[in-house]
Amino acid sequence: MTVLILTCRQDVTADMVVARLHDHGVPLMRLDPADLPGAAALSTEYVSGDFQGYLSTGGRLLSMSSLRSIWVRRPGAPAAHAPEPSPWLTAETEQALYGMLYATQARWMNHPSASAQARCKPWQLRIAQRSNFAVPPTVITTFPYAARQFAEQYGDIVVKAASGPPSGGPPVALPTTRIGPDADFAAVSAGPTLLQRYIPKQADVRLTYVGGRMYAARKPAAEGQVDGRYGTSEHTWTAVDTPDRIARAVHDFIDLAGLAYAAFDFAEDEEGVWWFLECNQGGQFGFIELETGQPIAEEVARWLRA
Amino acid sequence: MTVLILTCRQDVTADMVVARLHDHGVPLMRLDPADLPGAAALSTEYVSGDFQGYLSTGGRLLSMSSLRSIWVRRPGAPAAHAPEPSPWLTAETEQALYGMLYATQARWMNHPSASAQARCKPWQLRIAQRSNFAVPPTVITTFPYAARQFAEQYGDIVVKAASGPPSGGPPVALPTTRIGPDADFAAVSAGPTLLQRYIPKQADVRLTYVGGRMYAARKPAAEGQVDGRYGTSEHTWTAVDTPDRIARAVHDFIDLAGLAYAAFDFAEDEEGVWWFLECNQGGQFGFIELETGQPIAEEVARWLRA
Repeated sequence: MTVLILTCRQDVTADMVVARLHDHGVPLMRLDPADLPGAAALSTEYVSGDFQGYLSTGGRLLSMSSLRSIWVRRPGAPAAHAPEPSPWLTAETEQALYGMLYATQARWMNHPSASAQARCKPWQLRIAQRSNFAVPPTVITTFPYAARQFAEQYGDIVVKAASGPPSGGPPVALPTTRIGPDADFAAVSAGPTLLQRYIPKQADVRLTYVGGRMYAARKPAAEGQVDGRYGTSEHTWTAVDTPDRIARAVHDFIDLAGLAYAAFDFAEDEEGVWWFLECNQGGQFGFIELETGQPIAEEVARWLRA
Repeated sequence: MTVLILTCRQDVTADMVVARLHDHGVPLMRLDPADLPGAAALSTEYVSGDFQGYLSTGGRLLSMSSLRSIWVRRPGAPAAHAPEPSPWLTAETEQALYGMLYATQARWMNHPSASAQARCKPWQLRIAQRSNFAVPPTVITTFPYAARQFAEQYGDIVVKAASGPPSGGPPVALPTTRIGPDADFAAVSAGPTLLQRYIPKQADVRLTYVGGRMYAARKPAAEGQVDGRYGTSEHTWTAVDTPDRIARAVHDFIDLAGLAYAAFDFAEDEEGVWWFLECNQGGQFGFIELETGQPIAEEVARWLRA
């Protein structure tokens, strides 16, 4: 039974897991969907109520009937490396590849349907509430009046992008930014704006969930730092225990979201409360593993070969 | 409790259902996501573990707590009518709108996650097999050898697009086309190709599924016609009974696909067997209702207000 890893060629996080799978002698195929068709090929046949599928790359042929699990790490767009790429060729190749994989009985980390849903931040915040996480008061609005009222009520707020940075175009950094209640909110009507109560934090917390196990890590915040993803800090990540209340909330969230892997970001306030900021279903773990020694790659490998 | 209909402005199929809902005095809001932000506005607030959302258009305000059901008919791309549209504004607006709607308890016809999965034809064929539909032998491949072998085995075959016609660019008709076993299959390596055994048909069958009920209609095939979507015919659609075996398969398919509405296309062969060709989760029903008198719009309205 073989593990399939969908990712691009340069991916050191995948390399870490591949090394663990090799240690355990687990057969695996690593495929970048961008190489299909071309360096990779596929074939699916439906005859007499039965289904057979094959994936080929690097001189190896993988039958869908011997597929154990699929790790969707950082796959390229299907057909992106084709001699004459086009949106239509990408659509056709995406259907052929993912449709064949959906038709199997393999376990997914994570299934693309669950990932697509989990990337939706307004939904995520609601699921976090239902799971009994502490969620900072938040508004997403195109009403300038609602934005102004929220800012007046909470005083100290931050503004964020709902969908993350623009894709496609040049990379743009959109750090979470603090604003005051006297800001001009007229432009809110031009595009949905996410405002959140600012949580004065003493630390960032990253909790990595892998198929039932949790690894929490904590890094003290630099003075006045708002967005832990930007800027530098003299502090490093250290492993911490996961409070029971948080563990229960993580399990509930994961059940509602249908995920096998997720990275949660929290802000720890001055009273030690972990405030839910976001859940990233495709979040990195290499930097956490390097600084804390938590065996996350080993745990991913364990889940994939189970 | 209000029904929300997501569709573009020109949509006679939606008009049919709106008329039925008006007959029953059911409150409804019709919204084109393209009008957001601008002619429409939204606001979602998360405070103290609770969630409140509002949608406003045409001078009306709809609270998410009074939302009964959502019909995703033919919605425009979010923010498409904005003064300065951009892919990023569309992404932000899509997150804000659909994220707010996903966070509600409303029933969906159909939920976008289920629709996205159902549009994937290779998955659809496998689900059709599992549901015990008769599925014509089919191959989807980038191996010229596999395509040639399939053509030699079945002799009389058709070629189709896996993902449908290209979107975005100029509309291109891609009718299903008959080819012989002596075709040149070398180009298969340049893009996944779907080949299917040709079913000599005496009729097209369209079965419309609406929330548990089925409406089958049949139209005799024109001489030598391959793709019922193209060309003209002297025949019209007439209502027919749904065979028990087909009804069971439809229920199984719907359960696996998580849909509330679907239009199934079959080819009826000379022995009366209905061969599964495809399931369109967003398929039209206006032309069927006009020719057969089947009360499909009424049934959609009944489900939405239930």
